[in-house]
Amino acid sequence: MNQLRWDPTLREWVAYATHRQDRTFLPPAEYCPLCPTKPGGFPTEVPREHYDIVVFENKFPSFAPDAVDPDEGGSVLTPTAPGRGVCEVVLYSDDHQATLATSSERRIRNLIEVWADRYEELGSREEVDYVFIFENKGEAIGVTLHHPHGQIYAYPYVPPRTAQLIRQARAHREAGGGNLLADVLAAEQRAGERIVLTGEHWTAYVPAAARWPVEVHLAPHRDVPDVAALDDAERDELAHVYLELLRRADRYFEGVAALPYIAGWHQAPVGADRPLGRLHLQLFSILRAPGKLKYLAGSESGMGAFITDTNPEDVAEQLRAVKTTGERASQGAPATEEGNEPGVEPTGTVVVR
Amino acid sequence: MNQLRWDPTLREWVAYATHRQDRTFLPPAEYCPLCPTKPGGFPTEVPREHYDIVVFENKFPSFAPDAVDPDEGGSVLTPTAPGRGVCEVVLYSDDHQATLATSSERRIRNLIEVWADRYEELGSREEVDYVFIFENKGEAIGVTLHHPHGQIYAYPYVPPRTAQLIRQARAHREAGGGNLLADVLAAEQRAGERIVLTGEHWTAYVPAAARWPVEVHLAPHRDVPDVAALDDAERDELAHVYLELLRRADRYFEGVAALPYIAGWHQAPVGADRPLGRLHLQLFSILRAPGKLKYLAGSESGMGAFITDTNPEDVAEQLRAVKTTGERASQGAPATEEGNEPGVEPTGTVVVR
Repeated sequence: MNQLRWDPTLREWVAYATHRQDRTFLPPAEYCPLCPTKPGGFPTEVPREHYDIVVFENKFPSFAPDAVDPDEGGSVLTPTAPGRGVCEVVLYSDDHQATLATSSERRIRNLIEVWADRYEELGSREEVDYVFIFENKGEAIGVTLHHPHGQIYAYPYVPPRTAQLIRQARAHREAGGGNLLADVLAAEQRAGERIVLTGEHWTAYVPAAARWPVEVHLAPHRDVPDVAALDDAERDELAHVYLELLRRADRYFEGVAALPYIAGWHQAPVGADRPLGRLHLQLFSILRAPGKLKYLAGSESGMGAFITDTNPEDVAEQLRAVKTTGERASQGAPATEEGNEPGVEPTGTVVVR
Repeated sequence: MNQLRWDPTLREWVAYATHRQDRTFLPPAEYCPLCPTKPGGFPTEVPREHYDIVVFENKFPSFAPDAVDPDEGGSVLTPTAPGRGVCEVVLYSDDHQATLATSSERRIRNLIEVWADRYEELGSREEVDYVFIFENKGEAIGVTLHHPHGQIYAYPYVPPRTAQLIRQARAHREAGGGNLLADVLAAEQRAGERIVLTGEHWTAYVPAAARWPVEVHLAPHRDVPDVAALDDAERDELAHVYLELLRRADRYFEGVAALPYIAGWHQAPVGADRPLGRLHLQLFSILRAPGKLKYLAGSESGMGAFITDTNPEDVAEQLRAVKTTGERASQGAPATEEGNEPGVEPTGTVVVR
């Protein structure tokens, strides 16, 4: 059952998906449903012996294309609606042990094409107001399947964070400003102290008011609303700088083999407010120190008021200082050298639905 | 260093308190800094051999009364401000093993007096815009000290959740409605199916658009802005119904000895918008099943879009069905019978600053 209910006190839809209680929970590696199907083995989600990148609909979706109208009509204050939308899973590799940070640049370049394809397809659906492309990585983030994968949620509404951002962007423009997110990027470039890396087309920075213990944003230099609108040069450089960021994230904490993280693409909503949005990646971790998590307790979860234990300038300095070549100081698999990963061709993308 | 920075994309202050990285982290029980100081033992935060209820300033505060102006002035888009405010710790008992749910009604009645006292005091300070009284309970919530205690944050701004609620309450009133939170309570009373318990002065209900796996709100029947405005009859009944709710929460999941929870009092802001607010308690847990947590991953933390695995009507039914008398079905200490806890007198409250 996929249902939406309106919270009149916070002006938000809340989505209900009670069948998700039964979702597959940390199965042993030999029963991974995201691995290729081995000859004579149990059938996984992918009926092939090998694959490069695979996309399919989530079996336990938060939103479903065929969600029915709720039985209860709700009330005037709390109307209900069907939770109509699409949730997809994107498998990054058929290697259960792989991670994006240890992938080749070429694989990430292919992944960008997949993202653009899925954005175009899902964003054009009538019931979809917003497409969110993201990865939850690590058990500390709540990942229930370890196989390397990301997700795409096509929401039937503009999510609360984006709705707030669009309200702010509109007010900023009405007050004589430019595109709010472009102005934020320009301010970070002027300040300089929180810049992590800069290319010809992209800049990564720790935002001045970062709220997570480790947080970095990656924004294109050109005003681009979504991944599908990136040109070839921007996509090429993105593969390089995103891989570099992921490698730095994995080596951020001494003694932590891989940083648990959430990485999500903030895109413009697909409707009339599209010109107010601007593409950027938000990569963040709840790890505040080795073995210590930042919990969203009373202040954050009860009041929405973030208390942050780290200083954005220090985080940027540390991310700049991480060495991604040579031996790792801490344990963990070494990063694969760029381009030497076998078996991945730019045209090898497999999309299964 | 206590500092605020403005996030122009989300219209929120983010608070920085980097010294909190050094806070005491899950010390062994014999080194609990919240226990009474034993003769010849190490000095704890409380220089007494016994106490009933103690309040003192947090040693690792998210906001501090003497916070200085930040060195960096920020920018036009991201101004900064000193993180001026007050964070207090409220010790519920000198018994390290106690919990509120196993306390006497009389102890909770005393605690309500302490809350009212602290609200009056902190809310009257010039730098304070909002007073939040809350408890984080359980390691799964991120608690770093197990001794039974709550906290009070006196914020120098109206927290984002309350700011949004006040905007909605104003719009509701301008559209011809009453107090929004009173109208929400009335709608729940009419619907009936999500009511957990009702007294003469209080009703507990699972909100129609609850976002946490277990969530219950407790609201007074009369329009009351804050705990200090509760009359004696309301305080008396509150002690009874709050204890009852806490006991039901602890027995909610078969096989779970004590529910990890966050309980927070939503009060009116102390300024001009006071008439738009209305007191209510929000008690919620991130436990979605025994051994399984609801994580705030990509959709919630990246997009602010809540996906909920439980049905509010089912949660209400289960909370109604919990038996709080007799043998517990699951392991764990039995609840103390009302009023038979030794050593607590209504006038025994100790406030140390």
